[in-house]
Amino acid sequence: MALSVKHLLGIKELNAQDIEQIFQTADNFKQVLQRPIKKVPTLRDTTVANIFFENSTRTRLSFELAEKRLGADVVNFSASGSSVSKGETLIDTVNNILAMKVDMVVMRHSASGAPWFLAQHIDASIVNAGDGTNEHPTQALLDAYSMREQLGNLKGKRVAILGDIMHSRVALSNIYCLNKLGAEVVVSGPPTLIPKHIESLGVKVEYNVKKALEWCDVANVLRIQLERQHKPLFSTLREYALYYGVNKQMLDSLEKDIVIMHPGPINRGVEINSDVADSKQSIILNQVENGVAIRMAVIYLLSGKRDMNE
Amino acid sequence: MALSVKHLLGIKELNAQDIEQIFQTADNFKQVLQRPIKKVPTLRDTTVANIFFENSTRTRLSFELAEKRLGADVVNFSASGSSVSKGETLIDTVNNILAMKVDMVVMRHSASGAPWFLAQHIDASIVNAGDGTNEHPTQALLDAYSMREQLGNLKGKRVAILGDIMHSRVALSNIYCLNKLGAEVVVSGPPTLIPKHIESLGVKVEYNVKKALEWCDVANVLRIQLERQHKPLFSTLREYALYYGVNKQMLDSLEKDIVIMHPGPINRGVEINSDVADSKQSIILNQVENGVAIRMAVIYLLSGKRDMNE
Amino acid sequence: MALSVKHLLGIKELNAQDIEQIFQTADNFKQVLQRPIKKVPTLRDTTVANIFFENSTRTRLSFELAEKRLGADVVNFSASGSSVSKGETLIDTVNNILAMKVDMVVMRHSASGAPWFLAQHIDASIVNAGDGTNEHPTQALLDAYSMREQLGNLKGKRVAILGDIMHSRVALSNIYCLNKLGAEVVVSGPPTLIPKHIESLGVKVEYNVKKALEWCDVANVLRIQLERQHKPLFSTLREYALYYGVNKQMLDSLEKDIVIMHPGPINRGVEINSDVADSKQSIILNQVENGVAIRMAVIYLLSGKRDMNE
Repeated sequence: MALSVKHLLGIKELNAQDIEQIFQTADNFKQVLQRPIKKVPTLRDTTVANIFFENSTRTRLSFELAEKRLGADVVNFSASGSSVSKGETLIDTVNNILAMKVDMVVMRHSASGAPWFLAQHIDASIVNAGDGTNEHPTQALLDAYSMREQLGNLKGKRVAILGDIMHSRVALSNIYCLNKLGAEVVVSGPPTLIPKHIESLGVKVEYNVKKALEWCDVANVLRIQLERQHKPLFSTLREYALYYGVNKQMLDSLEKDIVIMHPGPINRGVEINSDVADSKQSIILNQVENGVAIRMAVIYLLSGKRDMNE
Repeated sequence: MALSVKHLLGIKELNAQDIEQIFQTADNFKQVLQRPIKKVPTLRDTTVANIFFENSTRTRLSFELAEKRLGADVVNFSASGSSVSKGETLIDTVNNILAMKVDMVVMRHSASGAPWFLAQHIDASIVNAGDGTNEHPTQALLDAYSMREQLGNLKGKRVAILGDIMHSRVALSNIYCLNKLGAEVVVSGPPTLIPKHIESLGVKVEYNVKKALEWCDVANVLRIQLERQHKPLFSTLREYALYYGVNKQMLDSLEKDIVIMHPGPINRGVEINSDVADSKQSIILNQVENGVAIRMAVIYLLSGKRDMNE
Repeated sequence: MALSVKHLLGIKELNAQDIEQIFQTADNFKQVLQRPIKKVPTLRDTTVANIFFENSTRTRLSFELAEKRLGADVVNFSASGSSVSKGETLIDTVNNILAMKVDMVVMRHSASGAPWFLAQHIDASIVNAGDGTNEHPTQALLDAYSMREQLGNLKGKRVAILGDIMHSRVALSNIYCLNKLGAEVVVSGPPTLIPKHIESLGVKVEYNVKKALEWCDVANVLRIQLERQHKPLFSTLREYALYYGVNKQMLDSLEKDIVIMHPGPINRGVEINSDVADSKQSIILNQVENGVAIRMAVIYLLSGKRDMNE
């Protein structure tokens, strides 16, 4: 039982068996998280460094809890207040941390590809916690895992990804992951936010959000990342909400109940209305909950330990 | 043995029995803190999140130590570097943290009432670590507990609260707490910093600081919170010190020894002189020490655990 | 077995026996760090506060790992986001932290002498993690320890310290430490960055870097601390690199292999070239690794515990 990879850099490098193994391991850890004492001492001989060169709340906390619940020692490092501002290179920063007998690195970086670059130069396992607009593999894993909990095997299931596909590492990792698991994927959103030639990734494009919703079993509604868009694409957020936001009326008009997902943080009233985000169809908080189990599974499997409860 | 409340939002909601129970529990934990190993494993199955939307040193550290010494897992979250800056709502932020199997929330927020608002929307217990200019309940509890250590039962004891009563959550929580314990309270300070109609809270106003000191058994000297005052109230801090600052000469002129308290951080030479802050009458550092025991007691009692040493 | 000092303020106060004792203790802890479980429970009854009034990555992380691997409880405090910005004095800040039953303080401060000042006013042991341009004792200890690993006893060994001697606390602590261990020290670098009368500290000055390298067994190449220099000393960094930077060609021209050290963070291509920093002669990452063992030793010895593995 081991992954085919040494690092979790992107979903692109995983095969379907890897993903299945991560899911089965997460199933076990999810049971651990239901117990009063939500911990196993499996990684009590392991030190993990969370190195975040970009701001994050939920992802850093989720990794930190996953690591602590595996019994690992955790050190946190954020770019501000660090030697990075003194001009040190990425490799030197990470090598220094590793020299202190750190066994694994969880890294978020604003530059797409940064973790791949790093993986060529260091020995420890790296988990990519988001790199630029490229990949966010643990998010895609927890998303697919959460879909699987609702729908069973994802083969042939229909997933619509809605919103800013162009700038979203969540979208890209989701597409890779769902493809490998045999799901069908449609992306939908404003034409300016959908990359040309995205069909080459094995997805279909449907510019009409309503039609995408009618087609799908699950809708993964992405966050409009205002901070990543350099020119005003819509005269107002209200305009975005009007044409591309998901609201209850729209869902009620469908002939079936679809599952609603969102990676967070939510812009309520923009890409998703509160009556949808808080509805019974929404599994947004399940995604967050599953995130800890998925990250425990990834870290455990990369650590090469044998016994999950040891 | 349980509090009458699910959350510690404010002293206003507590009854005298709750306060007495917190004090007795703190007595036990204070003994634990005297031992070489200052820990009990009582909350080893509990994860507490410290969510601070406002800067803090002593309060955050005091809570963190209290939680760790109860054996809890601790995660810290501060507003800067968080999804809050991405426009997420308070409820979504907290619900996301709770979805990761966090059992209790300690929160500081700049908006008065924020923890009450939150309590209507989440399941976990909330401890208010200070909300705007409203309440700071654990500070009032540790203050009253520290007075009780010096003076015994507070019924009929005379407490003067000096300084900026208007903007101080410490003052308001102290007034509620001391009232419930049967102490008499006088507030004193510049007329511009004492709210009109404050007598309706069951306190008396004495604009002359010297007379307030002559009357009281304990003086709780508040910090002049320069960062909260939007217009210059005094031409210089020296002017404030001259008319309202507490100095040794003033204390020596009294016919008795009164107990001197201050919630910190101290502006030496402004509201309190060093010869007073560092005098034998001062119990300022006892307050800090008691803060950890009081917070252990509050968290323990809200957790619903049965056995303090389990 | 105890040090002759209560605090580790500077190397200046240590005697050769203290240093030897720290090294022998570090030898033991280095073995602990080779084991799968890199921890001893020696300080499980101790709480250490890392109080950093100046930014730091490697030093803070190194101390934090050292403390955690000794089993201590750790609280971190950084100046930003603290009551320090509210005008509290250094002594009040630290006394408040200590009142919460903190046993030891590790402090970095931008003011030279700050830890000495503090030591006069508080009871707990203080470890200086760098004060202004004065001392950085644990860096000097780990440097000398790393030299000793390569060269054996340092008596009579030749050490060249290269770079900005004037503003470097690493240089000053190294000079004190190497003197006490009987090594010979030459400082070398731009005349404007070497203090007049530095010979009074028992070192020699050699302005020609090449000649210093020819003379020495070990070269400790200091970082050009751009953030500490208030006027432009060189028209370009390239100019510095040209006259004072250490490169492979220079090393190859020597008739022997010298050991290359650097306290980090490295400015690659400025004071040191990558072909030197990453060469077999370089022990830069060994220094980082040894830093954790040295800090474990210092904290252990100051704690007054008897049994290292207890």
